[in-house]
Amino acid sequence: MEHYPEGKRIVIVGGGFGGLAAARALRGLPAEITIVDRQNHHCFQPLLYQVATAVISPADIAWPIRFILRGQHNMRILMAEVTGVDTQAHLVHTDSVTLPYDYLVLATGATHFYFGHNNWAPFAPGLKDVEDATEIRGRMLLAFEHAELTTDAAKQRALLTFVIIGGGPTGVEMAGAIAEVALKTLPKEFCTIDPRSARIILIEAGPRILPSFPDHLSEYAKQTLEKMGVEVWTSSPVTDVDMNGVIVKSERIEAGTIIWAAGVQASPAAEWVGAPHDQNGRVKVKTDLSIPGHPEIFAIGDTAQVFYNDGQQVPGIAPAAKQMGAYVGKLIASDIEGKPRPGPFVYHHQGDLATIGRHAAVVKLKFLGLTGFLGWLFWSIAHVYFLIGIRNRVVVALTWIWQLFTNQRGARIIALPEHVQDAKKRADVV
Amino acid sequence: MEHYPEGKRIVIVGGGFGGLAAARALRGLPAEITIVDRQNHHCFQPLLYQVATAVISPADIAWPIRFILRGQHNMRILMAEVTGVDTQAHLVHTDSVTLPYDYLVLATGATHFYFGHNNWAPFAPGLKDVEDATEIRGRMLLAFEHAELTTDAAKQRALLTFVIIGGGPTGVEMAGAIAEVALKTLPKEFCTIDPRSARIILIEAGPRILPSFPDHLSEYAKQTLEKMGVEVWTSSPVTDVDMNGVIVKSERIEAGTIIWAAGVQASPAAEWVGAPHDQNGRVKVKTDLSIPGHPEIFAIGDTAQVFYNDGQQVPGIAPAAKQMGAYVGKLIASDIEGKPRPGPFVYHHQGDLATIGRHAAVVKLKFLGLTGFLGWLFWSIAHVYFLIGIRNRVVVALTWIWQLFTNQRGARIIALPEHVQDAKKRADVV
Repeated sequence: MEHYPEGKRIVIVGGGFGGLAAARALRGLPAEITIVDRQNHHCFQPLLYQVATAVISPADIAWPIRFILRGQHNMRILMAEVTGVDTQAHLVHTDSVTLPYDYLVLATGATHFYFGHNNWAPFAPGLKDVEDATEIRGRMLLAFEHAELTTDAAKQRALLTFVIIGGGPTGVEMAGAIAEVALKTLPKEFCTIDPRSARIILIEAGPRILPSFPDHLSEYAKQTLEKMGVEVWTSSPVTDVDMNGVIVKSERIEAGTIIWAAGVQASPAAEWVGAPHDQNGRVKVKTDLSIPGHPEIFAIGDTAQVFYNDGQQVPGIAPAAKQMGAYVGKLIASDIEGKPRPGPFVYHHQGDLATIGRHAAVVKLKFLGLTGFLGWLFWSIAHVYFLIGIRNRVVVALTWIWQLFTNQRGARIIALPEHVQDAKKRADVV
Repeated sequence: MEHYPEGKRIVIVGGGFGGLAAARALRGLPAEITIVDRQNHHCFQPLLYQVATAVISPADIAWPIRFILRGQHNMRILMAEVTGVDTQAHLVHTDSVTLPYDYLVLATGATHFYFGHNNWAPFAPGLKDVEDATEIRGRMLLAFEHAELTTDAAKQRALLTFVIIGGGPTGVEMAGAIAEVALKTLPKEFCTIDPRSARIILIEAGPRILPSFPDHLSEYAKQTLEKMGVEVWTSSPVTDVDMNGVIVKSERIEAGTIIWAAGVQASPAAEWVGAPHDQNGRVKVKTDLSIPGHPEIFAIGDTAQVFYNDGQQVPGIAPAAKQMGAYVGKLIASDIEGKPRPGPFVYHHQGDLATIGRHAAVVKLKFLGLTGFLGWLFWSIAHVYFLIGIRNRVVVALTWIWQLFTNQRGARIIALPEHVQDAKKRADVV
């Protein structure tokens, strides 16, 4: 890093889409910028479900933050976990170093939210980082392995039942992909069980899946999933989750694999800075994304509660985080360069995308709606385009083409953390 | 699986090179064959060091055993851990099912051997499966991250010291690859530390590294490593290992990362069947690889002690395991088909290969010795050829070409098991 002893110190917490966009907007500025993240890598979350369903490897969608920002000479990157912020002394405390700041950008993202039932977490992992994805992959593949081993018909049935809680894009993508695994990838490889008999249930508390899409695309997604054998249960709030199943309304479903795609909550950034926040922990920022009373602290991406149009909430998706990061970076640069701050942040919604398996997707842009294979093609090209690095783009594109023709999935490794293995053994699933 | 109620039941324990070769040699036989492995995947161990040093992903060198053998209709694959064998009742016991057998093939491989110091294991992980590889990758990358965070010069020095114990092919490959990481991949990405100042020490108890190669190739490897800044310590037995370093003879080296590439021992297969074994646990098999007193039980690969030529021990490498697996498969097929058993097993040594970083390798075949870039090219083509599946071959070849031109490593993810993270925190390394 080049040093600017007189320059402002900018600390960005989080190397996700928002944090990276802010860092890039500060490129070339005579300031000392630090990105702190507890991981060493940025993760391309929109493709995490493909890691969880054994198509691609974690490294295909994760890059060291240092590598991404290596050309930016006013930056340093630290791998550390933030433990708190002293807004009076302008200090960020971490588990190792303490960082003074003149500007602070909180881009800490979101985590799973179990609606107050944190005890459900060990049984229904969510999908937010590569560790989550490899864990879900391991659980899903292990369920088929254990089903092959058991001779108890009821256990076998439970092991071949996959419950996905939450009918947003992640839930729909997971349900479609697990159906493909069961129907296309595995059938010829087992002796005792027929993987095609797997029961896949997508459970949504609201009246329809993909609520951010227009009605007819929700209906299309539902029908496509049902054609693949997925049971889509709408208006079905989950009332309990344990190691061996879920309760929906008053019906119990025995299930060997449960995946949480229902709720997210912001990281505790609001608490660090004592800012007002909504029930999901999102900071209630001002129109310039700064925190009330602190024009030097900003919250962006999933950490912030922002509205657009007629009071709609800006969704927790990558383009929104990027736009906020770029805006805040530009605002800080204006300050430092002595220019007036830009006007309020304005969100531009570019559209919604979700795949639904079987090389089909739903795409809803402003002037374009696509479904089926065309939708999938659009989705694929868009996602390959947004990956980082030529090698990863080539590898992911090749892998998808290969999968299109063979139905194979090349990343079928079961490597579960010890506590999950232990729990599985305790549950005596076999 | 097709059922042959009158057919013989053959159980193969282990889906490594030996087990797979045996299974393939039994293709089409009217028998019921079961492969049991505690993992769901076969791992191409010769490239594990490339996973450990962040070049390729685990899935590039690991395939589900079911997928590999999917076309073989007399087989079933079970993911289970063998707990013992009842040689009287002809039963294999596992943690879930019990398997009766007429023929039993023990192809359980080897694990790390700490020469009686099992307490060294948590501090100096070895490299035998994909979990080991991702752990070593995480430890190596985390050492650079922690060095960047600390302001204590002595700690920084220790964190940037990498000790590899054992000068065989794995140790040489790891030392060369870590030197490349420090010299080529990371330099421009850090602010506080200079990764090029990393100290990499390859420690060998014997008088020279690569003892299975001719003298001049050992010397070439040593010089090549030294040119890359690796310290090569020969005749240097390690006398102690702890969380923060090693003792070699009476000198203590503080090291943040310690890797074990020194000794291996066979799995406990010899104990399961009560067979005579050497001090490393290898079963002392007869010339047809069967176990004394049990013509229906065979031990192959790293599980067996076999000699060739003038009493040299068959090395623990993939081609040896494959040859033994194919031999035993053929022998069992002869039995079942009522043909005479083939003559004694004869090992054909095809050669020795090892890379030493910087796109250099040493190759020693019967009529061919190669070093440098030509050696590396030969090594690369041979290894791509032996990978399974077109997709993996293409991806690995592309990745190597990309790395050749960019010096980048695309799989730099730190994802450590919890017990390692906890230990690192307890050690207060930062």
